[in-house]
Amino acid sequence: MSSSNNKIPVAVLAATGTVGQRFVSLLAEHPWFKVVAVTASERSAGQRYADAASWVVPGEIPPGVADLVVRPTDADPGDVPLVFSALPGSVAREVELALAARGYAVCSNASALRMEPDVPLIVPEINPDHIHLIKAQREMRGWSGSIITAPNCAVTGFIFPLKVLHEAFGIEKVNVVTMQAISGAGYPGVSSFDILDNVIPFISGEEDKLETEPAKLLGKLADGKIDPAGFIISPQVNRVPLMDGHLAALSVKLAKDAGMDEVREAFGSFVAPEGVRDLPSTPERPVILRSEDDRPQPRRDRDAGNGMSVSVGRVRPCPVFDVKLVSLVHNTLRGAAGGAIQNAEWLVASGYLGEQTLERLHVGTLAR
Amino acid sequence: MSSSNNKIPVAVLAATGTVGQRFVSLLAEHPWFKVVAVTASERSAGQRYADAASWVVPGEIPPGVADLVVRPTDADPGDVPLVFSALPGSVAREVELALAARGYAVCSNASALRMEPDVPLIVPEINPDHIHLIKAQREMRGWSGSIITAPNCAVTGFIFPLKVLHEAFGIEKVNVVTMQAISGAGYPGVSSFDILDNVIPFISGEEDKLETEPAKLLGKLADGKIDPAGFIISPQVNRVPLMDGHLAALSVKLAKDAGMDEVREAFGSFVAPEGVRDLPSTPERPVILRSEDDRPQPRRDRDAGNGMSVSVGRVRPCPVFDVKLVSLVHNTLRGAAGGAIQNAEWLVASGYLGEQTLERLHVGTLAR
Amino acid sequence: MSSSNNKIPVAVLAATGTVGQRFVSLLAEHPWFKVVAVTASERSAGQRYADAASWVVPGEIPPGVADLVVRPTDADPGDVPLVFSALPGSVAREVELALAARGYAVCSNASALRMEPDVPLIVPEINPDHIHLIKAQREMRGWSGSIITAPNCAVTGFIFPLKVLHEAFGIEKVNVVTMQAISGAGYPGVSSFDILDNVIPFISGEEDKLETEPAKLLGKLADGKIDPAGFIISPQVNRVPLMDGHLAALSVKLAKDAGMDEVREAFGSFVAPEGVRDLPSTPERPVILRSEDDRPQPRRDRDAGNGMSVSVGRVRPCPVFDVKLVSLVHNTLRGAAGGAIQNAEWLVASGYLGEQTLERLHVGTLAR
Amino acid sequence: MSSSNNKIPVAVLAATGTVGQRFVSLLAEHPWFKVVAVTASERSAGQRYADAASWVVPGEIPPGVADLVVRPTDADPGDVPLVFSALPGSVAREVELALAARGYAVCSNASALRMEPDVPLIVPEINPDHIHLIKAQREMRGWSGSIITAPNCAVTGFIFPLKVLHEAFGIEKVNVVTMQAISGAGYPGVSSFDILDNVIPFISGEEDKLETEPAKLLGKLADGKIDPAGFIISPQVNRVPLMDGHLAALSVKLAKDAGMDEVREAFGSFVAPEGVRDLPSTPERPVILRSEDDRPQPRRDRDAGNGMSVSVGRVRPCPVFDVKLVSLVHNTLRGAAGGAIQNAEWLVASGYLGEQTLERLHVGTLAR
Repeated sequence: MSSSNNKIPVAVLAATGTVGQRFVSLLAEHPWFKVVAVTASERSAGQRYADAASWVVPGEIPPGVADLVVRPTDADPGDVPLVFSALPGSVAREVELALAARGYAVCSNASALRMEPDVPLIVPEINPDHIHLIKAQREMRGWSGSIITAPNCAVTGFIFPLKVLHEAFGIEKVNVVTMQAISGAGYPGVSSFDILDNVIPFISGEEDKLETEPAKLLGKLADGKIDPAGFIISPQVNRVPLMDGHLAALSVKLAKDAGMDEVREAFGSFVAPEGVRDLPSTPERPVILRSEDDRPQPRRDRDAGNGMSVSVGRVRPCPVFDVKLVSLVHNTLRGAAGGAIQNAEWLVASGYLGEQTLERLHVGTLAR
Repeated sequence: MSSSNNKIPVAVLAATGTVGQRFVSLLAEHPWFKVVAVTASERSAGQRYADAASWVVPGEIPPGVADLVVRPTDADPGDVPLVFSALPGSVAREVELALAARGYAVCSNASALRMEPDVPLIVPEINPDHIHLIKAQREMRGWSGSIITAPNCAVTGFIFPLKVLHEAFGIEKVNVVTMQAISGAGYPGVSSFDILDNVIPFISGEEDKLETEPAKLLGKLADGKIDPAGFIISPQVNRVPLMDGHLAALSVKLAKDAGMDEVREAFGSFVAPEGVRDLPSTPERPVILRSEDDRPQPRRDRDAGNGMSVSVGRVRPCPVFDVKLVSLVHNTLRGAAGGAIQNAEWLVASGYLGEQTLERLHVGTLAR
Repeated sequence: MSSSNNKIPVAVLAATGTVGQRFVSLLAEHPWFKVVAVTASERSAGQRYADAASWVVPGEIPPGVADLVVRPTDADPGDVPLVFSALPGSVAREVELALAARGYAVCSNASALRMEPDVPLIVPEINPDHIHLIKAQREMRGWSGSIITAPNCAVTGFIFPLKVLHEAFGIEKVNVVTMQAISGAGYPGVSSFDILDNVIPFISGEEDKLETEPAKLLGKLADGKIDPAGFIISPQVNRVPLMDGHLAALSVKLAKDAGMDEVREAFGSFVAPEGVRDLPSTPERPVILRSEDDRPQPRRDRDAGNGMSVSVGRVRPCPVFDVKLVSLVHNTLRGAAGGAIQNAEWLVASGYLGEQTLERLHVGTLAR
Repeated sequence: MSSSNNKIPVAVLAATGTVGQRFVSLLAEHPWFKVVAVTASERSAGQRYADAASWVVPGEIPPGVADLVVRPTDADPGDVPLVFSALPGSVAREVELALAARGYAVCSNASALRMEPDVPLIVPEINPDHIHLIKAQREMRGWSGSIITAPNCAVTGFIFPLKVLHEAFGIEKVNVVTMQAISGAGYPGVSSFDILDNVIPFISGEEDKLETEPAKLLGKLADGKIDPAGFIISPQVNRVPLMDGHLAALSVKLAKDAGMDEVREAFGSFVAPEGVRDLPSTPERPVILRSEDDRPQPRRDRDAGNGMSVSVGRVRPCPVFDVKLVSLVHNTLRGAAGGAIQNAEWLVASGYLGEQTLERLHVGTLAR
């Protein structure tokens, strides 16, 4: 699929915010997708995208999107089979449900529907089979569309080490303390008055997400529903004066004994599942295990694998549980827009966008 | 003791470094002590203090100290009964032992001797009775001097909530993740190249101190030795781009059930022990329990109680242990020079400096 | 005036913002003034001050003010002779004019009326005699109240070196580049997304103020109006990731030759004018000339003289003009609330508050 | 020249420092050059490069260089025709002279020889013809080697707007105030204790370079020497808490009248000279003129043109001179290693490396 002509046309909802901008930026060079519509709140509707968006992500506004006229979020996103949602919590639920009901595939970064029993919460390297929850979703909701969600940005990072440990040894308990970048709060987000020369030991609503989402992600799909994993997580979150990159310090109690060599081996042997491996956004090494004493570090490691690799380090025994380690994720790439785009790739690769849809759009066989 | 004439003359060892400067700065207005001698490495010896010290702490160099001639650290600190040590680890052990052997009282901020069985490791509000370990020390070492030490700067912070919880409910296990200020590394210390827009999940040698010092601090003095408290601590330390203030996120497993109201009550009722309460450096409220969702914060709370109060907040249940909370300490005041000065006050108030010494120096009865 | 009973009661307008909070904080211990009323926008009116204000300045909310009920800004500020205005530009003009017309003395930190021909723009050490412009103001406006204003926060800093140079040698041209702290933008003010690891070479509306206010400040009062000083200023302003302290790099073309020794002497001999010298907020040394190569620095020097001293350094010849130097001001103390309070002190000391007013309020003779 | 086999082998001197690391990093993918030798001080000599270098620049150590054994700086850099020098000032002069005398082409980023009359100081887009000063250099020094230097990192930025203005209108006087990133000081460089929440209005030795280098860069080559441009510059430099990117605020007095439209046109029409345009490191747009009020900003614009474009903005009239503007350069890319590599490309393209040398090395015709 080399020419832009047979790319899948997509819309970005809430395209003027920081996550929306990341979607637009990452999709500019995407081999499968092409942004043909953008939406935003009433205030911006009707303006050129370049005028409506106060562009804050790296690089310039992609020329093909700069001149699109912003549509109101509650209007029709146009003749596209797939929409990316960067909608704020307050409106995400209603708009996403309405769009799926009208047949759109909705790949969402919003938290509103993540924990709905029939909505897949997916990181393709972690729980690719959960994509099939869409079948149950379509049946129950009676629609031909679909909604799939990507987890909270901090969860998207430390779910990688949890996956590795859970699969190899079983997890019983987790204590996790995060140090999160200011970009996670969007724009204008965190006031510099609050965060310069400071740390804020609180992010509204965040700890709930860290407690609940991992168990769903590592749960099992059976009979059209997810049976959550049985471990308990105790999170404490902090905002630190850092642009990008969420760092997590984890202590994990395992179900069976594990030497540090075995743990490191488990990390070393992790690879993306077949199928997922070949998605355009899947990095060569989804997890990078570092052996230095003082890594990973946000500024130095967040861009690994184009911001899609999760870095893990400081693997060592924990005197109160079993294993301690540190993990790092680029929160606005892997942890937000990049993750939702990879989810959309997986949706397409899994056949859920529909042959008919692709044919109607004259989109040929996906090839890279 | 209102006039400067009958203050106790003291020396500051390694007075040109950041902790040494804090000693000099805090002692400038001290009601009991007066700096009459300063030492530093060979390189600085013989210079005026104001020329030798690259002054980096707030305010100006106290006039009375600016013109002192710096003595070499291995020389005699002069006719003083008490010395404050800000010596680096490499030389602290040897120099401090030699001085105590020659009759000096050494109040040290160095880590070298903290875990020696006969050396008191003291925070006056926490374990004031450990001062009496000096008797065993003098007997065993056969000297008339003394060495007392203050704990690691991060430990000095979270030992306050641990003390409160241990006394009220008993502690079994602790998971602690710290976010530590750059001033803790001295000067030049942390390169800005390493820490701007970054977090470093490592501080050399720090986690060992956090694992071992709390149990000694909360241990019991009996038969001339300290029986350490029986809990286990698992620390993870991080350096963050912050000037002053070490923040700690704690999860604690208690020996008996405790509701959050009981926990908050225990914090609310903590006061400094009699005797300690009246020391010049003891703050009115050693522990400040905050009820806001997002406090304590380093920039906003580190100066509470002239930097000697420890702030605690976010007290809430922990799903994997029992209680979670956040605590904050000003690492270079309470956590370094301020703590060692308060220790010296406690040494004097406990009578260990010696009546004869005070009389020889024409220092009258301590009064404030 | 030692007891709180015979202090002058005052109101703070827009008391919930950052400058308003600084007023409340600084007035808590003021020997002459006592805050008895606070106002804010409709949204906050009717609430307790402690609930309405998201307190962000150092220290805790003064107890005497915490429980005041916030009045709406357009209502009567109560039975007080003097109000401090931290009103935003949009409403300052109308509200301040209305209050002066009703007899209040308005000491404003807002920019709205600074350049009005009959409104004094004052820094007491710089142009104390401009206070007498109030006579013309009262005559022209036909009111018994008064409005006096304090200059822009950056101007308040570099006006000190300009004053010294203008008086001693005459100034013809000035090139000034500022590096301004984020606290100057209030709260939430500058997004951390914009300023972390960045510099913004722009502050809306700021350069106009830097071009015009200095000439008025150094102008001459004659015949009931200010004849502005005749020099030209070219400013360039920048926002830098710094909490407090506006730094300015100045190049100045003088009217007559001046050796660097003469320039330094001029700085060394600057003192506050008689009368101004004794105001409670006037620092012992209004200008501190530093001789180090690398000072003044914001974090190290902003608090000099309780944040009311301006620090000057790096005095050296300028190859394109005559003199280059750097000056620093604490922008929210001297440059905002502190300056307006000192103006109010000067207004009272100059007799413009009115004997009758003071008597009616049972406020006795001012004494310190 | 597509295969690595016929690339020109080069050595990097002082390869373990931050600029040395940038050389190694940028040369990893260079189409013409291949690093085959690295040198460092005695302390590191004999170690693997990956062990000797405390790698701090983005990305990982290039595999081809990681295993090179570090040579001592005063030894032979090996069978290479060209060396890149990141040597510190203290040794650069001696080592660089010795190497040129032995026939090496030395492309230096050090300041030691920049102002030598027979050493070209070059930015290829600015003064490409100065390369021919090598002829005079070889004649005078009696060597077959060569030394060419790149200017100071801050100068490399603002020389672009000066070039445009000087060519179009003539420059008489310049006032420039810089805000410079901490990466300019190398590693460990600036202590975080000095720069967090601070600005330092001083960089040792920097202002001298800013006063003298621009006149040489914009000077004319005639009769084997450079006749410096006749304008005067008055610089003031500042270090700000910023990772990368030197920002400069310029005020310029022109020799003839210029409207702002003419000035903007002059910027808009600037292109790299023929020959220079096609060098691998020359960006498509050497100068990017921005029209927003608040750009360029370091974090947002430093990476333009792979860090080789200089961004200019805020072009407006200056009341004391003629034009004010802001310019930005990536100090460690365009302003250090990137600039010196582009110089080497220009040296090769200009034929100064010597056909014989290239033939002996079996390096074919340069082609991209």
